Amino acid sequence: MVFITRREQFNAAHRLFRDDFSEEENLRVFGKCSNPNWHGHNYTLFVTVKGPVAPQTGFVVNLASLGRLIREKVVEKLDHRNINLEVPFMSGRLASTENLAVAIWEELEEEIRKLGGILHSVRINETENNSAEYLGPEQEKE
Amino acid sequence: MVFITRREQFNAAHRLFRDDFSEEENLRVFGKCSNPNWHGHNYTLFVTVKGPVAPQTGFVVNLASLGRLIREKVVEKLDHRNINLEVPFMSGRLASTENLAVAIWEELEEEIRKLGGILHSVRINETENNSAEYLGPEQEKE
Amino acid sequence: MVFITRREQFNAAHRLFRDDFSEEENLRVFGKCSNPNWHGHNYTLFVTVKGPVAPQTGFVVNLASLGRLIREKVVEKLDHRNINLEVPFMSGRLASTENLAVAIWEELEEEIRKLGGILHSVRINETENNSAEYLGPEQEKE
Amino acid sequence: MVFITRREQFNAAHRLFRDDFSEEENLRVFGKCSNPNWHGHNYTLFVTVKGPVAPQTGFVVNLASLGRLIREKVVEKLDHRNINLEVPFMSGRLASTENLAVAIWEELEEEIRKLGGILHSVRINETENNSAEYLGPEQEKE
Amino acid sequence: MVFITRREQFNAAHRLFRDDFSEEENLRVFGKCSNPNWHGHNYTLFVTVKGPVAPQTGFVVNLASLGRLIREKVVEKLDHRNINLEVPFMSGRLASTENLAVAIWEELEEEIRKLGGILHSVRINETENNSAEYLGPEQEKE
Amino acid sequence: MVFITRREQFNAAHRLFRDDFSEEENLRVFGKCSNPNWHGHNYTLFVTVKGPVAPQTGFVVNLASLGRLIREKVVEKLDHRNINLEVPFMSGRLASTENLAVAIWEELEEEIRKLGGILHSVRINETENNSAEYLGPEQEKE
Repeated sequence: MVFITRREQFNAAHRLFRDDFSEEENLRVFGKCSNPNWHGHNYTLFVTVKGPVAPQTGFVVNLASLGRLIREKVVEKLDHRNINLEVPFMSGRLASTENLAVAIWEELEEEIRKLGGILHSVRINETENNSAEYLGPEQEKE
Repeated sequence: MVFITRREQFNAAHRLFRDDFSEEENLRVFGKCSNPNWHGHNYTLFVTVKGPVAPQTGFVVNLASLGRLIREKVVEKLDHRNINLEVPFMSGRLASTENLAVAIWEELEEEIRKLGGILHSVRINETENNSAEYLGPEQEKE
Repeated sequence: MVFITRREQFNAAHRLFRDDFSEEENLRVFGKCSNPNWHGHNYTLFVTVKGPVAPQTGFVVNLASLGRLIREKVVEKLDHRNINLEVPFMSGRLASTENLAVAIWEELEEEIRKLGGILHSVRINETENNSAEYLGPEQEKE
Repeated sequence: MVFITRREQFNAAHRLFRDDFSEEENLRVFGKCSNPNWHGHNYTLFVTVKGPVAPQTGFVVNLASLGRLIREKVVEKLDHRNINLEVPFMSGRLASTENLAVAIWEELEEEIRKLGGILHSVRINETENNSAEYLGPEQEKE
Repeated sequence: MVFITRREQFNAAHRLFRDDFSEEENLRVFGKCSNPNWHGHNYTLFVTVKGPVAPQTGFVVNLASLGRLIREKVVEKLDHRNINLEVPFMSGRLASTENLAVAIWEELEEEIRKLGGILHSVRINETENNSAEYLGPEQEKE
Repeated sequence: MVFITRREQFNAAHRLFRDDFSEEENLRVFGKCSNPNWHGHNYTLFVTVKGPVAPQTGFVVNLASLGRLIREKVVEKLDHRNINLEVPFMSGRLASTENLAVAIWEELEEEIRKLGGILHSVRINETENNSAEYLGPEQEKE
């Protein structure tokens, strides 16, 4: 079992807020992240895939193919977009880094299995100080 | 003459577009950066100040004071804001990295002179691949 | 279960040595790190907290609150300090990166539980080449 | 149980290909990485060792000794070398990052036990976007 | 006058040596960089372009266009290549970082003028410790 | 004329203070940097040398030789040292980053001329936010 990680990036706008909160409640709970005029980030995404090394290629999964898959299924839907308004797989979810990691996991898990690997982790760095990582639903049962 | 540099950061939303362009023209000229729903970045700002080293302190300018000045005059007006809609010193300017560097120079130059230094350069990294730097209006005459 | 990580930093002086060693023994065991006149580092601290994502906020724990907690309980006691002489929670411990990680865990674990999360890991980068990580006392029983 | 990590680096040439493939098959499977004239990378190696903290030193293992060991057993054999042609422990293996991580594990495991630690992980960053990590043969049974 | 910088990357093999030197002379002058079996690097390229900011776009030069130009004229000829054997614009030149910076300048200068900017600097980081920068032939006369 | 840059690093303790100031005055002027028990940093040093490219080697100056020179003349005197107490070339100078850059320039200028290059710049990053750069005494006359 070897773990390989592919880094991809996207730049997006977002806002943390709830429709059922007043502007004041949103500000109290989410601080400056609730600005109604949006703000944004350079998000860095790390997708880790595990599996045995195929003797014929020396690969768990071809990292170039993995990069293409992540760009097609995830990055193209997020890059230069508004996460609250324009990203189908974030519809109805608060646009937090935690929820983004879970949603990206759900977009990628089955697709990565088709490539022959097992999705192990989705990590997102929102800033150099803040990041979130999701290891899948089975992690929750421990 | 020694040059000191202070790094500060801000996260903001923006959009590249012209009111007098149609949506199609904006897309042709500015590409995905013209998305009407905004996108955003983690901007990294480097402000370089030059001057002689004061014998009494060993400083050109106290870097802690310089950091406070940059945060008060620039970062607090940009951080978690929409550059097109909410930043007084960017009003009426296209929200490009180039224009942002020039505008930040104008906000800081006189204030830095009051601290006892001479503003030498404002550099902004918009992403790890793209940056802009302004060395002031006198640079243009060369 | 999602894992969130907050990065904080501090600059401190330290020395690796034992009172019950001669200067020569200290030099033999700890090398240049035993210099009696001290040396120092820019320490980078990564605190990872795990927990379910609260549906109301999209957060495991508010990363801004986590940052404030780490700065108040840990960084303010270490930053611009001498780790051997001035840091109450390092008193009586060798000032190694390993011991620092364990001590910071002990300072933070209960406080993070009050915020609603579970401390998962404390990692400290002493230089770009050297780091230590502690996952808590239960890790030892495995 | 504390985990310490030492970073080392090496610059090497390599090529991904199989002798039993035609040039076309190699190009189809390995893409531009199969260039018969070689290409190369700045490889960054992270070796993580775990163990209890020795009360006498505050160390899991002396990081300076660990660094020397990694340089002697691994880096000196790879640095400024051709991984396909000149590295004994890669002989007969496809020069993928995955295989390199496994081979470095095998070179280091016993040696690190002699230093008093337990090898936990070998991670290699081939580029800023691509990396591989190996946690040893016991990881495979899970 | 504003300066914009675009970062691009390429991974290549090379060797420092002279045909008219014996293997021993090459080793004496170029050290391990003269290894006849090649070694390689992840090269990071920074291209800086200067010019006035166009009022219509807020750009010195569109950074996306600049990136495409650099990839087409320079990166595609170097990436996953052997600099000594396969790169037309390095033919007959020692494959040092200095010479690479000069050669890339020559490939780009006129093309960047066609985009409407003035090439100011070509900088190449060969490793995190070593880099070279060329500011053009006029710099030599000073 | 090509500019080459070598990066080196050192970890040191220091304190900003004046003997002729009271503890209160030192605290007012230098803040937490005046802590009498010292603090420290991982300093990163960038030395830039300019000159024509030698046709025989493709080098301005051999970067390996330049690295050895910087380590011998500068890094070995600073690394794991107390800058205020133990570094001959900082004796009698306030241990600010500005003064350190000037002092390192003075240590290196003549030595680099012997290697065949011209010292162009000494830059020191004290933290990721603070740095100082010195371009030599002739810069002051402009």
